[in-house]
Amino acid sequence: MGTKDVNIQNRDKEKLSIVKIGGNIVDNPEELDKFLTDFNKLEGLKILIHGGGKVASKMSEQLGIETKKVDGRRITDAETLKLVTMVYAGLINKNIVASLQKLGCNSIGLSGADANTIPSVRRSPKPVDFGFVGDPDPKKVNKSFISLLVENDIIPVFCAITHDGDGTLLNTNADTIAYTVATALSEKYKTVLYYCFEKEGVLMDVNDPVSLIERINLEEYDKLIQQGVIADGMIPKLYNSFNAISQGVSEVKILHAKNLLTGRGTVLN
Amino acid sequence: MGTKDVNIQNRDKEKLSIVKIGGNIVDNPEELDKFLTDFNKLEGLKILIHGGGKVASKMSEQLGIETKKVDGRRITDAETLKLVTMVYAGLINKNIVASLQKLGCNSIGLSGADANTIPSVRRSPKPVDFGFVGDPDPKKVNKSFISLLVENDIIPVFCAITHDGDGTLLNTNADTIAYTVATALSEKYKTVLYYCFEKEGVLMDVNDPVSLIERINLEEYDKLIQQGVIADGMIPKLYNSFNAISQGVSEVKILHAKNLLTGRGTVLN
Repeated sequence: MGTKDVNIQNRDKEKLSIVKIGGNIVDNPEELDKFLTDFNKLEGLKILIHGGGKVASKMSEQLGIETKKVDGRRITDAETLKLVTMVYAGLINKNIVASLQKLGCNSIGLSGADANTIPSVRRSPKPVDFGFVGDPDPKKVNKSFISLLVENDIIPVFCAITHDGDGTLLNTNADTIAYTVATALSEKYKTVLYYCFEKEGVLMDVNDPVSLIERINLEEYDKLIQQGVIADGMIPKLYNSFNAISQGVSEVKILHAKNLLTGRGTVLN
Repeated sequence: MGTKDVNIQNRDKEKLSIVKIGGNIVDNPEELDKFLTDFNKLEGLKILIHGGGKVASKMSEQLGIETKKVDGRRITDAETLKLVTMVYAGLINKNIVASLQKLGCNSIGLSGADANTIPSVRRSPKPVDFGFVGDPDPKKVNKSFISLLVENDIIPVFCAITHDGDGTLLNTNADTIAYTVATALSEKYKTVLYYCFEKEGVLMDVNDPVSLIERINLEEYDKLIQQGVIADGMIPKLYNSFNAISQGVSEVKILHAKNLLTGRGTVLN
């Protein structure tokens, strides 16, 4: 299905915003409060997805759990899984929900196991065994339940924990959860995916906030990669974004968390 | 409203089982698995409420959080609140949900903050300041949302964390949560409250499982207290139970977790 066909289909659908915030906001209580106040003001149907932050790493040290890495990438062993389940699904998730309730925003905290919202598949141990890490499939998302919530004005707040349906919880990348939920729900809604982070958006010069690129399409994206403008952590974010767009998501915005309401940032479509 | 009127009203309502399990089952993976298998087989609409267990105390020691007590009763200070939020709402709650999903039981883990299901009031600091402890009011329970879940065949699994609606999570007694939810929902359903624990029920002789008292009504309860048969931890459990019954709950069963399906235990009504 081409972009044009998708756009025609999207015309009559209700808008649904899927907003992802990273760990750096979660780590800063003042910034988090400010962000949640803005999120509460965002009009229309919406879903929040949050990353983990440094709380888990700090607690890991306190508990003497050794952080295992392969090729610089973290491994989720059994002890680490327990820890991230406690911190992401318990501490962070429930505090965000309580803060939103204070603002009058009726939210509900969810892992992917809850109501089987986001089942995932444990990643193959080859070539690298990342441990209890799961990759979700947009086709398996419990769309009807998530729709039931948003249409009853209850805002889902997802942490980055999923499950394999066989009794095991799995650590999952929060960007991937956002992409998965947005893609799954784009059949029914005009979905807009917001990746909120600590920069203004995609920058021509990573050290210069004024060098913001306001809009990128797939063709320009290929060029920017060739030119080396898009590099490091931005590559998987944009790869996921264009993947989401090709699967029906209307628009992806990459922006600073403080700009959620103005929408100023980089628009991908 | 007398017991007779309540019974007449209950005749046409659909049955809803509210099952509470204590920390001792949560602490034992094999017993927990066996219990969840039985719970899955329990027919009709149902809700699970779980206590905390020893995981929080163990982790508290590991993290060097000092357990504060007044008159032998634990105080929930800010650090302890973080810990129980992680362990109850994160680790235990999500693992129970994942285990139920494995059994094909579509469950959803909730704290009282989620969808504002169980708001509570922080307990007065006088005469004793218990810290971040909340007492819920059955009248404030979000009955419509809990009904929406159970009627969509999604089983709520509550941990013993609530919130004050002003951004603060509160540690709450799991027996009280069970009583509160059962009472709140008895307007709409014929509610049966199961308190599952490690004894056969109310015993004439606490050391003799054969001395089970099969049925107690309010009059007999008063006599048994006078005789000293009901003592210690059993007093608040039975007090809550008869309170629940006077507020519309059809029946309360106090029984060993292994007897959930046979129903063998003490019936209060």
